Parts: sequence; structure tokens; C-alpha cells
Amino acid sequence: MAKSATSISGVYIIGTGLLGTSLGLCLRSHGVSVWLSDLSSSASALAADYGAGEVATTLPEDVDLVVVATPPDVTASVVAQALKDFPQALVIDVASVKQSIRNALESQDVDMSRYVGTHPMAGREKGGPTAARTDLFVARPWVVCAGDTVSEESLAAIHGVVEMCGATIHDMSADDHDRVVAMVSHVPQVVSSVMAGTLNAASPADLDLAGQGVRDVTRIAGSDPALWIQILQHNAAPVSALLADVAAKLSAAAAALSDTTVAGAKRELAELLDAGVRGVSQIPGKHGLSKQFATLNVIIDDKPGQLAAVLHDVGEIGVNLEDMRLEHSPGAAVGFVELSVQPERVHELSDALETRGWRIAGERS
Amino acid sequence: MAKSATSISGVYIIGTGLLGTSLGLCLRSHGVSVWLSDLSSSASALAADYGAGEVATTLPEDVDLVVVATPPDVTASVVAQALKDFPQALVIDVASVKQSIRNALESQDVDMSRYVGTHPMAGREKGGPTAARTDLFVARPWVVCAGDTVSEESLAAIHGVVEMCGATIHDMSADDHDRVVAMVSHVPQVVSSVMAGTLNAASPADLDLAGQGVRDVTRIAGSDPALWIQILQHNAAPVSALLADVAAKLSAAAAALSDTTVAGAKRELAELLDAGVRGVSQIPGKHGLSKQFATLNVIIDDKPGQLAAVLHDVGEIGVNLEDMRLEHSPGAAVGFVELSVQPERVHELSDALETRGWRIAGERS
Repeated sequence: MAKSATSISGVYIIGTGLLGTSLGLCLRSHGVSVWLSDLSSSASALAADYGAGEVATTLPEDVDLVVVATPPDVTASVVAQALKDFPQALVIDVASVKQSIRNALESQDVDMSRYVGTHPMAGREKGGPTAARTDLFVARPWVVCAGDTVSEESLAAIHGVVEMCGATIHDMSADDHDRVVAMVSHVPQVVSSVMAGTLNAASPADLDLAGQGVRDVTRIAGSDPALWIQILQHNAAPVSALLADVAAKLSAAAAALSDTTVAGAKRELAELLDAGVRGVSQIPGKHGLSKQFATLNVIIDDKPGQLAAVLHDVGEIGVNLEDMRLEHSPGAAVGFVELSVQPERVHELSDALETRGWRIAGERS
Repeated sequence: MAKSATSISGVYIIGTGLLGTSLGLCLRSHGVSVWLSDLSSSASALAADYGAGEVATTLPEDVDLVVVATPPDVTASVVAQALKDFPQALVIDVASVKQSIRNALESQDVDMSRYVGTHPMAGREKGGPTAARTDLFVARPWVVCAGDTVSEESLAAIHGVVEMCGATIHDMSADDHDRVVAMVSHVPQVVSSVMAGTLNAASPADLDLAGQGVRDVTRIAGSDPALWIQILQHNAAPVSALLADVAAKLSAAAAALSDTTVAGAKRELAELLDAGVRGVSQIPGKHGLSKQFATLNVIIDDKPGQLAAVLHDVGEIGVNLEDMRLEHSPGAAVGFVELSVQPERVHELSDALETRGWRIAGERS
């Protein structure tokens, strides 16, 4: 009989930060027994207070699954110890790097048939137990890197836990995981940080000219450096290779711009910009489609209730909102809300909103 | 008597794209006479149909101000001709680069005492007369680079037009303008394009793991390459220098990651990430303050009306929304709305929303 999600009835969570505590809350809400431990006894006590489980003072019995939710630097050694302490249980980790942990484990004498590396991509990885939420994993990707030593029924049990949390399962190898997150997460982080670092040379008056573009490019630069140093080090090879590639392309663009009369310079810039247009169109939007929406900029007074009022009107007009963004104009009494809709509906929406008294600052199909 | 905004009673707009047509609409709404011309007679006729002014078949009389709203490649020569054709009028341009146009004009025999370079930063620069809006410039920065040959009253007249459009005036030199937009607009564009270009190596399954971070970093990569080639060429020197700096820093990060055991490698990465945290905190947020908001992720069903409903509740709870973003989960039936509020209000808001039945997927102070 395949081991189903419900066959997991006792879980031991090591590390009660944001991920560990949220997982505890979710499992408890499904009636699973949860024991908690953390290097900081106040952190595990806090997680227990929030309802994430019971603090384990000794190694608990009746554990089917151990979840290691520690920082990446110590994950491998905690997993190895858990495999020894719980000789019957499955052990998973939730760190955001996978191959370096697998390598470290394979160099030790541990039972790899009971280990599965996983990575729930639940937005921000910062925050302690107080930031935890039962619904943290809902509709988020959760990567499962089973390797080839794990039985089908063990894998099914892990999948069951992921589904219990409402996340979407992405099975892949640890190697593929690390290559992909280098591209879609780690390198964008470093690029954003470096771009944001150039703004330290600006005066406050200069930055009054900062529009939505530079804000978007640099937003994630505000992430926690201490955690990112660990992530980058544990995924150093794929990140380093891709960063070198990005650096070379930017260098080539700088060279092309240093003398645009040189043959091929303009073509090089054009190809670079065209590649960017193609690349960004690959990212799936709502419902997995590439984004091909028309946008409308509505001017709103910068006071409570205005945003709800315009969205209420959009709902009444009956046009489905595919996306929206809010933009403030520092120093001005108004803001903008950019509405994304299907291109064939944008004129209708714009006319109907104007009829209702809204001011439209721009429309693009 | 200082020449005030109202002293401008006749304006000739050359180039009826998005900016020229929007300016015409705005000036007409204030009772100013507007004549229009464009290389494409159908574009100027269309702008006139929208109400942006009257198509000029010959050079109009009674013109106080000529606005050159052509692509940057031809702006200088059109400005030079306008200064000759209208010996009594002020002439401004609205191109997004300033020093190269000034240089081209200064090398010719034209009356620089009547020329002022300007740059309305009105979001997307793409789109023809059909995308034009009376309110396009509302609450947007409008840079004015007067130089030192223009009289105070002429400058006051230009300021009057900018204010009439609802934009905020930013006086600076052409050189400063180009340096600043290189940093806050042109270099972020190239960096975003190059980053997005790397995604062409990804499979569709890879990009299912793309979260909000990489989406933000690459969003502007979708901009029009044909226009950007012109902009980059006309601001080549500042952009090239800053791009080379970004490339060097990314190269250094790649090198540090290629062997993190080398002395100083970790420190180099930490300093780079720290500089990014400092840099992004310099960008003014709402009301010109640096952004220091707490965030809350609310789960919403992916159907019309949900967003308006949650914002309606936020309004009733009485917590002021500082910012918000919508996030979709491709393939999932739910989306997320991230609400940014003052940190001291975030717990109250989160509790009140849960009481009203909303599911919270995350909270960060």
C-alpha cells in the first residue's frame, strides 16, 4: 500500500524559524502530532505558544518524519544526526540550496534511502516564529529533490505533506534545482544588490527622479545580507558562472556605448535589448500564460478608500483585472494605479472609468 | 513684468506622438491655442481628431512657444529649424536626453537665448497619439535644463507650462540630468534587459519557479528596443561608465564565489549586499520618505471583486495603505495581495482581516 499523506502522523521539526513554525501550524491544523526543537529554547517555546506543536525536551517517539528547518550552513549536519537519531523516520530539509547538502551527506555514513531534500519557495525567507502563518505555503512552488535511493512510497508521503500545505509539487534533481534557482533567484538578487549599490552615489534630489523602473529593479536589494551570504556560498558554482556571463554582457554593452560609431556596436546593443524582450516574455503570468496585457493608469487621490473605490468600479464595469500596481508620486497629493486587463477590453474600461469621473493618465495596448 | 504661464497663448507642437499629443490636449483644456505638425500627416490629423489642437498646413502665426516632441535622433535639427522659423518664440524639446542635443545646437548658428531643454518623465515613452491623455504629466517629474542664456521671464513661462500640466518642476543642468537619468533609468534598463536575456536559456518548467523577485528585476526589459537604442546612444558616455562599474562589481562577485575560501571573498560579498541594502533605502517612497513599511500577504481567490473586497475591508478597519502589490501563482486558483502599512499597525490589521475571514499567508515587520 502506498504511504499516503495521512500515513504521516508524527512530525519532529528542528528549527522553529518562519518555515519550521509555519509548517508546524499547518500540520497541527490537519491533526498531525508535531514536536518542536530549536537551538534557542525561547524560539521553540514561542512556536509552541503560537500552536505549532509541543516542545520536545527529549527525542520524541512515534516520529514518521523529521523536518530540518535550520539555516543552510548547518542543515547537512543536522540532517545526518536526525537520520541516526530516528532510524525509522523519513528526514527532509527545507533549505534553499540542495546539491551542497546532498554532497555533504553522501560523504558521510548515513542512510540516504530515508532522506529527501526539499525547498518550499514561500516568498521571503526572513522572519522568526512570530511571522509564521498556517497558510505560508499556499499556492507556492515546493521543490522536491528525491534522488534515486528513496522508495516510491516514501516520496508519496513527502508529496502528501507538500499537498497538505497547499503548495504545488515540483520534482527535480538537486542539480537542476540549484541551476534553476541560480537563474530565477540568486543571480537576480546579486544583480539587484549591485544596481542598488550604485544609488549610494546619488543625492536626494537626484533620486526624486527615480521612477517605477529603477524601483522594481532594486526592490529585492533590501533582502537580508546575512542569509544571502549563506545561500550564495552554498550555490556558488552555478551563481558564479551565470554572474560572470551577466557581467560580460554588461561589459560588452559598456564597450559598445563607449564608441557607437564602431561597426557592429549598434547591432550588439539591439541584440542585447531584443534578447531581454524575448526573455521576459518567457516568464509565465497569471494562469501560466505569458503576459500580454494592456494597461491603464488611473489617477487616485492619495487617501484611504480611493483604491478600493476604483477597484469597486472596475468590478461593476465587469472587466477582469489581470494585474495591478500602485505607484506613488513622492511629494504629490495623488498616486496612480496601473490596471492590467485583456487588450480587447482596455478601451471599454478606460471609457467607463472616465464616465464615472476617474482621470486616466495613460493607456497602453 | 514676469512672463507668466498665462502669457503663453499660442503653442506649435512638432511631433504628435504620445508626449506631443498629450501636451496638446492639456494646453487646449486650459484654453491655449495649439497647432500641430508631424512628419506623418495621418498622425497629426489623428491628434487633431482627439482634440489636441489644429493641424498646421503652413507655419502658424502668433506662436509664443514651439514644443519639439520628436524622437531624440532628430530633435536637435528640428529645434534649430524652429528657432529660425519662429524668431520671436521660445523653443523647448521634450527628449529624454539633454546634453547631446545642447551640444549639437551650440555647434550651430542658432539663438540659444530662446531654447530650453526639458524632459517630462511621464512613464512609458511608447505609444502614438491614440495613447495620449490630458493627464499624462500629472504628478510626474518634469526636468527643465535652462542653461545660462535664457532670461528669467522666459524660464518662468516654461515653468508655467509645466505647472499647467500638473507636473513637478526639477531645474538642473543638462549634464546633471544626463548623469542622473543614466543612474535611475538608462543603466537599470540595460541591466534588466541583460538579466532577462539569461532567461532564454530556461525551460518552461524552470520558469514555473520564477517568483516576484526575478519578475520585478526583469519587468522593464519588455520596453521598446528601437526607442532605447536611440536613448542609450544619446547618453552614451554616462551610461557606458556606470555600466562598466556595474559589470566590474558583478565580475568581482563572480570571482569571489568561484572560491569562497580565499581570504576576503566573503567580506567582498557581504559589502556588496550591504551596499545594496543602503542604496535601495535611499529611494524616496510615498510622501518622499524612505520606505520602512511592514507587509502583510493576504490570500485572495483569483476572481473579480476579491481585491476590491479586501481593500474595502482595509478601509473599514481604518489602516492607511502605504503600498500594495498583486501576485499571481501560475497554475493555482488563488493569488496574493501584499499590503504595506506602518509597522505599528500591521498586527492590528492582520488580526482584523483574519476576524473578517481573510487568510494571511505572511506578515513582515
